[in-house]
Amino acid sequence: MKHSHNQKEHDLGFARIDLDRYRRCGIPEVIYCPGKTARQILAIMKALQKAGHDVLATRASREQYAVVRKAIPKAVYHEAARAITLDVAKQPKPYGLIAVVCAGTSDLPVAEEAALTAERMGAKVERVYDVGVAGLHRLVNRLDAFKSARAVVVVAGMEGALPSVIGGLIDKPIIAVPTSIGYGTSMQGIAALLAMLNSCVPGISVVNIDNGFGAGTAAAMINRVAEETTKNRRLG
Amino acid sequence: MKHSHNQKEHDLGFARIDLDRYRRCGIPEVIYCPGKTARQILAIMKALQKAGHDVLATRASREQYAVVRKAIPKAVYHEAARAITLDVAKQPKPYGLIAVVCAGTSDLPVAEEAALTAERMGAKVERVYDVGVAGLHRLVNRLDAFKSARAVVVVAGMEGALPSVIGGLIDKPIIAVPTSIGYGTSMQGIAALLAMLNSCVPGISVVNIDNGFGAGTAAAMINRVAEETTKNRRLG
Amino acid sequence: MKHSHNQKEHDLGFARIDLDRYRRCGIPEVIYCPGKTARQILAIMKALQKAGHDVLATRASREQYAVVRKAIPKAVYHEAARAITLDVAKQPKPYGLIAVVCAGTSDLPVAEEAALTAERMGAKVERVYDVGVAGLHRLVNRLDAFKSARAVVVVAGMEGALPSVIGGLIDKPIIAVPTSIGYGTSMQGIAALLAMLNSCVPGISVVNIDNGFGAGTAAAMINRVAEETTKNRRLG
Amino acid sequence: MKHSHNQKEHDLGFARIDLDRYRRCGIPEVIYCPGKTARQILAIMKALQKAGHDVLATRASREQYAVVRKAIPKAVYHEAARAITLDVAKQPKPYGLIAVVCAGTSDLPVAEEAALTAERMGAKVERVYDVGVAGLHRLVNRLDAFKSARAVVVVAGMEGALPSVIGGLIDKPIIAVPTSIGYGTSMQGIAALLAMLNSCVPGISVVNIDNGFGAGTAAAMINRVAEETTKNRRLG
Amino acid sequence: MKHSHNQKEHDLGFARIDLDRYRRCGIPEVIYCPGKTARQILAIMKALQKAGHDVLATRASREQYAVVRKAIPKAVYHEAARAITLDVAKQPKPYGLIAVVCAGTSDLPVAEEAALTAERMGAKVERVYDVGVAGLHRLVNRLDAFKSARAVVVVAGMEGALPSVIGGLIDKPIIAVPTSIGYGTSMQGIAALLAMLNSCVPGISVVNIDNGFGAGTAAAMINRVAEETTKNRRLG
Amino acid sequence: MKHSHNQKEHDLGFARIDLDRYRRCGIPEVIYCPGKTARQILAIMKALQKAGHDVLATRASREQYAVVRKAIPKAVYHEAARAITLDVAKQPKPYGLIAVVCAGTSDLPVAEEAALTAERMGAKVERVYDVGVAGLHRLVNRLDAFKSARAVVVVAGMEGALPSVIGGLIDKPIIAVPTSIGYGTSMQGIAALLAMLNSCVPGISVVNIDNGFGAGTAAAMINRVAEETTKNRRLG
Amino acid sequence: MKHSHNQKEHDLGFARIDLDRYRRCGIPEVIYCPGKTARQILAIMKALQKAGHDVLATRASREQYAVVRKAIPKAVYHEAARAITLDVAKQPKPYGLIAVVCAGTSDLPVAEEAALTAERMGAKVERVYDVGVAGLHRLVNRLDAFKSARAVVVVAGMEGALPSVIGGLIDKPIIAVPTSIGYGTSMQGIAALLAMLNSCVPGISVVNIDNGFGAGTAAAMINRVAEETTKNRRLG
Amino acid sequence: MKHSHNQKEHDLGFARIDLDRYRRCGIPEVIYCPGKTARQILAIMKALQKAGHDVLATRASREQYAVVRKAIPKAVYHEAARAITLDVAKQPKPYGLIAVVCAGTSDLPVAEEAALTAERMGAKVERVYDVGVAGLHRLVNRLDAFKSARAVVVVAGMEGALPSVIGGLIDKPIIAVPTSIGYGTSMQGIAALLAMLNSCVPGISVVNIDNGFGAGTAAAMINRVAEETTKNRRLG
Repeated sequence: MKHSHNQKEHDLGFARIDLDRYRRCGIPEVIYCPGKTARQILAIMKALQKAGHDVLATRASREQYAVVRKAIPKAVYHEAARAITLDVAKQPKPYGLIAVVCAGTSDLPVAEEAALTAERMGAKVERVYDVGVAGLHRLVNRLDAFKSARAVVVVAGMEGALPSVIGGLIDKPIIAVPTSIGYGTSMQGIAALLAMLNSCVPGISVVNIDNGFGAGTAAAMINRVAEETTKNRRLG
Repeated sequence: MKHSHNQKEHDLGFARIDLDRYRRCGIPEVIYCPGKTARQILAIMKALQKAGHDVLATRASREQYAVVRKAIPKAVYHEAARAITLDVAKQPKPYGLIAVVCAGTSDLPVAEEAALTAERMGAKVERVYDVGVAGLHRLVNRLDAFKSARAVVVVAGMEGALPSVIGGLIDKPIIAVPTSIGYGTSMQGIAALLAMLNSCVPGISVVNIDNGFGAGTAAAMINRVAEETTKNRRLG
Repeated sequence: MKHSHNQKEHDLGFARIDLDRYRRCGIPEVIYCPGKTARQILAIMKALQKAGHDVLATRASREQYAVVRKAIPKAVYHEAARAITLDVAKQPKPYGLIAVVCAGTSDLPVAEEAALTAERMGAKVERVYDVGVAGLHRLVNRLDAFKSARAVVVVAGMEGALPSVIGGLIDKPIIAVPTSIGYGTSMQGIAALLAMLNSCVPGISVVNIDNGFGAGTAAAMINRVAEETTKNRRLG
Repeated sequence: MKHSHNQKEHDLGFARIDLDRYRRCGIPEVIYCPGKTARQILAIMKALQKAGHDVLATRASREQYAVVRKAIPKAVYHEAARAITLDVAKQPKPYGLIAVVCAGTSDLPVAEEAALTAERMGAKVERVYDVGVAGLHRLVNRLDAFKSARAVVVVAGMEGALPSVIGGLIDKPIIAVPTSIGYGTSMQGIAALLAMLNSCVPGISVVNIDNGFGAGTAAAMINRVAEETTKNRRLG
Repeated sequence: MKHSHNQKEHDLGFARIDLDRYRRCGIPEVIYCPGKTARQILAIMKALQKAGHDVLATRASREQYAVVRKAIPKAVYHEAARAITLDVAKQPKPYGLIAVVCAGTSDLPVAEEAALTAERMGAKVERVYDVGVAGLHRLVNRLDAFKSARAVVVVAGMEGALPSVIGGLIDKPIIAVPTSIGYGTSMQGIAALLAMLNSCVPGISVVNIDNGFGAGTAAAMINRVAEETTKNRRLG
Repeated sequence: MKHSHNQKEHDLGFARIDLDRYRRCGIPEVIYCPGKTARQILAIMKALQKAGHDVLATRASREQYAVVRKAIPKAVYHEAARAITLDVAKQPKPYGLIAVVCAGTSDLPVAEEAALTAERMGAKVERVYDVGVAGLHRLVNRLDAFKSARAVVVVAGMEGALPSVIGGLIDKPIIAVPTSIGYGTSMQGIAALLAMLNSCVPGISVVNIDNGFGAGTAAAMINRVAEETTKNRRLG
Repeated sequence: MKHSHNQKEHDLGFARIDLDRYRRCGIPEVIYCPGKTARQILAIMKALQKAGHDVLATRASREQYAVVRKAIPKAVYHEAARAITLDVAKQPKPYGLIAVVCAGTSDLPVAEEAALTAERMGAKVERVYDVGVAGLHRLVNRLDAFKSARAVVVVAGMEGALPSVIGGLIDKPIIAVPTSIGYGTSMQGIAALLAMLNSCVPGISVVNIDNGFGAGTAAAMINRVAEETTKNRRLG
Repeated sequence: MKHSHNQKEHDLGFARIDLDRYRRCGIPEVIYCPGKTARQILAIMKALQKAGHDVLATRASREQYAVVRKAIPKAVYHEAARAITLDVAKQPKPYGLIAVVCAGTSDLPVAEEAALTAERMGAKVERVYDVGVAGLHRLVNRLDAFKSARAVVVVAGMEGALPSVIGGLIDKPIIAVPTSIGYGTSMQGIAALLAMLNSCVPGISVVNIDNGFGAGTAAAMINRVAEETTKNRRLG
């Protein structure tokens, strides 16, 4: 495999890392761990580290982390989010606010992936977990958390009704994440996905099943747009 | 087509009417009108009338009713429920209580079919229409109606979340009816059906898409079981 | 994760237990075991026990039970239903009658889950197992069991025809439970589910595939409604 | 379009008719009418007539027949089966026995297509219509008709349970035909098809949705195999 | 149908209008026209008008508009968006920027629905139409339009690749709208929907097929969050 | 579990064996092994043996057989068919002819299950394996085998075209068996199933995916009908 | 709608025509007529004509053609292919050979669309129609036509087996086109599509259902690659 | 299993090898390893070797190779392609050019299977890996590789947009291969498959999910057709 190199890319044989992408799209190169060996993950992390980039590795197993930690002791494992992070640059102060909500214990890993992703992209994050459709009183108690957020990530499996219920109460952009939690006709999250796409409440948009990373990115982008608007106005 | 007749059946050539079924299963013979000519509907109604049975004809069009009314002026058309009824026997006093709830104007024909069916099977019916997930405050205002019912029929299209929300607030058997209202990924009611089958609230059971008749029957059976239990206890 | 506590909730870090729910909806907090560690199950059981609540843990493995039993020797494992129960309060006398029917040996775990659930919610339960469509004579022999019940739970996999056949013979509310038994086009229970939703017999309502717990709850709710109606009448 | 002709084929420009196929496979060339103009149907019929072949045209509309009848007055329209037939050769005496059963008035056109097809292929046919799962007593009354048949065609829509119920009572080959009758989750016959493919009764085989012609052919082939076996034995 | 009225609701018999919703969720009550009679649409518009609310009626036909215009001559029909608008309050100056992009002429009605919706919710809108995957050079020419927007709505049918291609070039939140344009395996937009949900570019979220209204709402909410952040900062 | 016994049934606690079924339907009670313990299989086999019935146990693993053989040394394991048989009664002379055809090595277990089942029900069986669509010349060489059969079982995975190709060449009833062989869009046999249901050749009927037992039963029933017809004629 | 123009594009308001695409990709701009008004089609044709380009308009109705012909009398309607062509440049001599095969009369429009498309892109085309799986002898008679072609387009509906059968006999690239011909489980061509994707014969590739245009383009591209290779060799 | 042998076939009991197929269809007999034992693979390889044929065994595991290597040390394992090759005849000089492109590291095994297959069938192959939709600049840098190829194989999972993007830039036949890479709604490659079938760029044809072998064969056939055309012209 011989590729012509250019300055902004780093070629590891099995994977090219696009080090310029952060600048171009505002999203750091993220390592999706399933199907990669621990050594491959390590090699990509080292290349990113060398280039001065912070690292986020999602869906990492404890075993993959064990290999990484030996070579890069600074790397941190986030058990609930199943992710590895590595701070290379100095971390900026978090800004704005994203709320991440989930419907039950089983949805927690996806919610944590969303929350951690948003944090890695600069956002302050408020976690509101174990707030379900079957217990509306809990939800109503937490409305303030939603109302001060710039965007709300709502994670839910099974019947996927939570985003609709929250969307009926607040006026903020909602990113809904269906999860594969359930059995039988939940069809690994299809039931929740369809419910979210067909919400009677407008302004809800949806990402792939279990895609906490995608939802966290979308929410962080909204958070940043608001931040940049403010800065531009001040400068303008 | 030559069939050996027996006493309890009436042979109209194109349809046998099982006049004994009411006694056997507690459900009157009901005429499902789509795909039948107005003349066929009329012939079945006359046979049932002659046998002394009340009639319920579901999914009847205005055109089908026009033909029926000429021959049987007593027949009544229920516009909202798209149904024809004919009282032959003396109507007994309605008993118990069934609540029929729906999420929006578009779901009304299915809700009315359920309500009318339950009434034809003896139940008192409370209608709670236009109470949706996006307006929880309306729902909470109507909780008393649900709490005094013996069973609640909840009709909803789109994301089908209403039964879960109501089920989290009350302790009565809920019959959920998905409707084909929606577009795109609603898939003619499949989205709502899946949401209802995957409700995080136990005790909800579901009927076919748009099957207001089935839901009304199921609710009326529950209503009757409660009524009969009471009578038996008194006698016992 | 810092939540504002309120009196009726118990926060275990990984799961909030809604101890007030029983009163609000008539359903005890139930522990769904798949995906939970034995320690998590144990912690929830202890919290419920401390609060004076009876416990039902569904889809529990022998391994999960082994951990629970060490700490709570009174906990009982129901092999056929794959469930753990713990009696904390004094068990009331069972009332009414629910029939639970199933089509074959393979459907037995789901049927037992339904039966046990209904029993935990107060119902007397009659089990009618190994009565299938291919042997109608057996079914006819057991009709009396169905006729004295307030509701009938019918569990079936493969072609899912049993609820229709029973529904043609009796006049009681039927809760049909499709199971994932079968292969090829059974599609893990979708074939049975569709058959049940499309039954030509009205008054059948359906729960999710393999959802014995949901069917048991729905049937027990009907049983209780009938019981309460009787009590209210006497008082009234 | 220039094709090299051979003796056994007749080229009409828009359709080649394989006049030798009857001999090769025992099935007459059949005209499937949807999507063909009345003139095209007429042209094919005339070519078959000229070659001395009987004709069966399925799914023919009244309008298509009107055009055909003007040119070929001997052609007969079978309203219930939606088919046109034309006797060219002398009709042989029907032999053996095929039973055709259906579950309801709506399934009648498919059942009649099966019956007529089997008759055109030489079989004596017994029609047993309006025998459904919800009325088992009617079914039991007709068992003799099934028992003397060489094969039984069972036509059913909705939950598609009828073939399983009949299959539990008799020991003859059953060809099951799902129909597109139903709504919502019947999915134009998919529910009935799946039920038939997953029958707990072995020995049932299935044809495409609404394919009365295919089922009639399959049953007639079984009927003929039995007939030929007998003849061969006598000769042998 | 007797409902207890409260101050913020207006009951038209067939539809309750929640006049308080705008304040609660920032979304005006919108009239979805399919399945409603022109008279029903007119009645709702008059009630909203009387309450001092601007009106947006989506998926309105020319025929429905004709009826509305007679009674309310000020109502405007937007041919491309298939929508009716009525300005009641004084229209505020549009702020911020939303880009609406589409892949082809056929997707234009959905794109226009999104653009008009965003405008009705206060946003300035830049339309970039007829920019497809098969002509990347056109896309690159329009990058500036995307880069100055606060959110980008990308509408595409068929293979639904456009959002991924745009997402690889910019760093703004993208709301993707699959359309039902295509044939065969496009499955009325399912192919495009799946492509969008599975984009290799993070930060894309998706709404229901053909749901231009939902996408316009989501984008306008992002636009408003940025605007409000700015205002709050200035005040703070 | 207390059941009322009757003479023709044998109750093993976990399974009732219907010893009268052979007489009623002409099919011996067959043991479907997946999901059963070796001990359960053994118990059922002993009960059948005691009642004087031959046994067929399908989808049996080598491990299950090992347990059975210890207790019943006469039991035979059929490796290719994954089945156990036990001869209790004296085996009658096989009669008639069934051809079993398959498309490739991978389909062999299903084909063998069909062949063995037909043999256990009395049929002489001709196996024609490794005859595929991609090698028509082999197929043509074996036409005689098909032509002397009373019914042909055709087993095929992947594109499922073999039954159509054979059906175009012969005039015997064909039972088509789709197999789950393939990957990707074969969808575990759905592709082959659909191809078979949509064959342009009439007279093909289809059983469930991988259901060799069902196909063998259907073919054996046809074989027996022909045999009985002959006997009856002689007697008549 | 204000777009910045560039030299190679022609802006008609409702559609941009990319006049440079032919040079870039070797495919002329083609007009897909469904959903376009006759006037829109006419306008695009005139613009292409003015730019000196030949025109192909697919899926055109007779009504659309009538409007076009009035303004451009030279435009030709191809009834069987449902297409309009307009020769602007001098037509070059056709080269190479593409065979287009189809399985039945109903598949003819798709086959003709493929054939005409290939011709418009320069290929000589041999049509082989009405050659089906059920009549292999016809197919074998036409093998020479396939063997001299550079690529073969095979069009088939229903069970979609024809490409596999042809692929087993020849060694040329095959482009398979499933059609929506069939009913019930053909699912508008999905059955044929799956059969083609799962062919046991390698070297078959597939286009969308009914996509004769795509298949013709793919085949013509292969034809041209071969032609250009030859030219380059001669020059080289 | 006794089959009549003919000269060109070699019978191994479990598999017939069609040694004449290469000549008939230009494709060597290929061994698909999943589901075969290492011994079976070895036996087939030896038979092919003995007959003087080169061997390609796809989807072979390291374990299967280990067994093969012991007996045939010359056999080579291609790790990335998961394939075994064995050179028996003298390898001819590769000719023409096929480009194989893929979208990411995860798609590499399928791409390598395609590349190796094309090489085994005589083609020179250019690999272009890690060129995705999210990084268009890389793609544009490699356009020359595509433009000199006779056919391009494009492998992509997730949203499957790469073939459309490449197809918009070049004028060569494209064989698209969807892969099962992704999660949730990627549905094991269905999302990518649908995107490819619905590409707005004509001239793309598609093979089964993960079918690198099929794509490599199709591309190699195109490569050979061009080569043969050249030779024939020279001779002519």
